[in-house]
Amino acid sequence: MAYELYYWPTIQGRGEFVRLALEEAGARYVDVARGAKKQKGGVPAMLALLDGRTVARPPFAPPFLKSGRLLIGQTANILLFLGARHRLAPANEAGRLWTNQLQLTIADFVGEVHDTHHPVGASLYYEEQKKEALRRAAEFRGQRAGKFLRYFETVLSRNGSGKHLVGGSLSYADLSLFQVVAGLRYAFPNTMKRLERKLPRVTALHERVAGRPRIAAYLASDRRLPFSEEGIFRRYPELDE
Amino acid sequence: MAYELYYWPTIQGRGEFVRLALEEAGARYVDVARGAKKQKGGVPAMLALLDGRTVARPPFAPPFLKSGRLLIGQTANILLFLGARHRLAPANEAGRLWTNQLQLTIADFVGEVHDTHHPVGASLYYEEQKKEALRRAAEFRGQRAGKFLRYFETVLSRNGSGKHLVGGSLSYADLSLFQVVAGLRYAFPNTMKRLERKLPRVTALHERVAGRPRIAAYLASDRRLPFSEEGIFRRYPELDE
Repeated sequence: MAYELYYWPTIQGRGEFVRLALEEAGARYVDVARGAKKQKGGVPAMLALLDGRTVARPPFAPPFLKSGRLLIGQTANILLFLGARHRLAPANEAGRLWTNQLQLTIADFVGEVHDTHHPVGASLYYEEQKKEALRRAAEFRGQRAGKFLRYFETVLSRNGSGKHLVGGSLSYADLSLFQVVAGLRYAFPNTMKRLERKLPRVTALHERVAGRPRIAAYLASDRRLPFSEEGIFRRYPELDE
Repeated sequence: MAYELYYWPTIQGRGEFVRLALEEAGARYVDVARGAKKQKGGVPAMLALLDGRTVARPPFAPPFLKSGRLLIGQTANILLFLGARHRLAPANEAGRLWTNQLQLTIADFVGEVHDTHHPVGASLYYEEQKKEALRRAAEFRGQRAGKFLRYFETVLSRNGSGKHLVGGSLSYADLSLFQVVAGLRYAFPNTMKRLERKLPRVTALHERVAGRPRIAAYLASDRRLPFSEEGIFRRYPELDE
């Protein structure tokens, strides 16, 4: 039975971390909210599970994944589940926890990226919080982006060949770090040009993931939505001085 | 062998979610950074693991937990580990994932609480971002706090007796929700007075957890640090109008 992924249909957002894992796994899945209403798809199908009064274990927000009777929310939690099912994380406890730990650190990083353009609140437009965004983005560029990226560079450098974040093979944390680099290059090209000089392993990991056959096919397909100023990684030149 | 918990020694912070689980489990643990330097404790012992050049799998930030050779970072990840070891989460996959999902939603909530007083960046004092904090806190009070709390009220109402978030017994998610309510009452007393009228189950869960023998003993001990304006939940009256 195919997985059902529920996420906003027009953006990569947090759903993209799940899409990348499903694509790399070669798993069958339906991106439900991108489907037609006629076929029980579209945003209403997503909202029915979010707001439905009979959902026993309702998610707080998209993305969430339906697998048979399981309804799983929170990006890192979905990846914990998929990692075990599709060998995108080690099977042993120590490796499983370490992969989850890295993913949660990526989630924190992604949250901070989001807040560069929404430092006051998600219910307001960027234009309504631009002044605050200028200050927060300066802090992000100066204090945070480099700190997170250097952390992942360190993790790679301490892991044997330096080619993966966890052990000797690809994990969903690698896929997620690829996505963060891609997003940051889109949103903060100047900052990334400066930072990447000292991130050889992170940069190489991005290239390697992009070149994996299933990921390359996915990125070239129309299943891969473009980055845009509706998503998490937004290119506002004034935030990347 | 006792667990070693590493967290900032003067605040509850994110470490408190781990402390509550360890206390409820009756587990032996050393709160290392609160110990004396003579006994290999104190903040330097924590920084040695954070910044040490030989740590194979370094954490990004406190809290982290040492259990034998395992070094586990990220609050929700530590709780995932402790939940399985000490029966603070169901043993089956569905229950384990659901507990983790709720904990990650609590983590998002806690992150938003933190950002009410630090909307620009953690490297600046509150006083340096007070203007932005006033706006962000208004958004938090009006749009976010109620949304999160009502979500947990809904989760409780859909779970049988309504006494636990997960299944029929206590989980670490219950302990964490207790802590969030305690913290919000400290930081946003006016807002909570208003919101709690419609949160009978969340309020009752807080009381029940506070009354559990091990938790009650912990809260009365000097191991429980007080809330303060150095932690995540800070009482700044101007942010709780």
